[in-house]
Amino acid sequence: MTITMYDLAGAEPDRRFSPFCWRARPKGLDVETVPWCFTEKDKNAGRVPVIIDGDQVIHDSTAIADYLEECYPERPPLFGGSSGRVLTRFVQNWTETVLQTGLFRLVVLDIYRHCTPQDQIYFRRSREEMLHATLEDIVRDREARLPAFRVSLDPLRRTLRRQAFVCGEAPAYADYVVFGAFQWARAISDFEVLVADDPIRAWRSRILDLFGGLARLDVPTSP
Amino acid sequence: MTITMYDLAGAEPDRRFSPFCWRARPKGLDVETVPWCFTEKDKNAGRVPVIIDGDQVIHDSTAIADYLEECYPERPPLFGGSSGRVLTRFVQNWTETVLQTGLFRLVVLDIYRHCTPQDQIYFRRSREEMLHATLEDIVRDREARLPAFRVSLDPLRRTLRRQAFVCGEAPAYADYVVFGAFQWARAISDFEVLVADDPIRAWRSRILDLFGGLARLDVPTSP
Repeated sequence: MTITMYDLAGAEPDRRFSPFCWRARPKGLDVETVPWCFTEKDKNAGRVPVIIDGDQVIHDSTAIADYLEECYPERPPLFGGSSGRVLTRFVQNWTETVLQTGLFRLVVLDIYRHCTPQDQIYFRRSREEMLHATLEDIVRDREARLPAFRVSLDPLRRTLRRQAFVCGEAPAYADYVVFGAFQWARAISDFEVLVADDPIRAWRSRILDLFGGLARLDVPTSP
Repeated sequence: MTITMYDLAGAEPDRRFSPFCWRARPKGLDVETVPWCFTEKDKNAGRVPVIIDGDQVIHDSTAIADYLEECYPERPPLFGGSSGRVLTRFVQNWTETVLQTGLFRLVVLDIYRHCTPQDQIYFRRSREEMLHATLEDIVRDREARLPAFRVSLDPLRRTLRRQAFVCGEAPAYADYVVFGAFQWARAISDFEVLVADDPIRAWRSRILDLFGGLARLDVPTSP
């Protein structure tokens, strides 16, 4: 049976850019996604990702990963046991405090530009309040901040210099968590945050090729 | 049989301050340590940690952990399976690129002060060459850099706000790797890098209490 997932979308419904939603997609399962916008607060308790699998409705990317791991044991594992699961949390906490925070301040204006008109009003007001600055001011010096951002990726870079994936020889959930952040930036912005020969960029390409190029479908092709 | 480990020491032989050596100590095994100084280059291929277990001689903290995990399966596990082992590498890479780098610039002059006279000559020359600054200049603004250093610990802090140890309910190798860095700073310097109510500080106390307070023995008590 096909799983349905509500997935954050921009003004173009096939531009999908939530780092949290992406985490919920891999395991190679047949998932039908439904676009959802920031201001559709009456749907899905106002948050994504949400998956519907038969009569099960599961909210939150971590709960979804746990659900998929338990209910689809025939698929490649996301965690590989309890110590894999618990150590994934450190990677997730790094992603959310360092990587996503850094990326946000590079691409926030691009996110705004790709939202629907009513999401733009919500997005600008909420993010400017949170950061005490206009979206334009936040990104103004982004070129100058890029070198420090790249240095902040050293733990990931050193890992990927020595192995193909964060999880070793094959990708698993920690890879999808980290990739979700890069996919978010990539789906919403042309601003390239990685230099051409960065091992992180080669890894990102490897993930983009997984599941028949699934992640490449999140960015509408130019007409 | 007792394992022998060569362990980095200061001018006082019972001041032990290598972050890498500490990683090799836990598993609750009976280990007899032998102090080793930076300039004893003729011993142990010029590096520590080295362990001697019967007729086995093992160099390098990662190789030692792998050896102990394989040869002492009756002791609590360091990795908990292959996905635990591979994800530990990300924690280790974070520790080495963010945590140890940050700590080094806070306590480097204290390391120097605790070395033997001949280690002081070696240590000052090699570290000043590496950092293109005098040891005194590196630490001069350390109070001012402390807030940014503390922010850099957010991935660890968020993890320890939600669980007792990096590895979950019980400590394992990823905890010892991170703790090794704090123990290094603590063994060599009175400069407190964590605020009193930081969850990282509570976790550090929990590790200090392990193995009968083993880690507390690395700092000579005042006469």
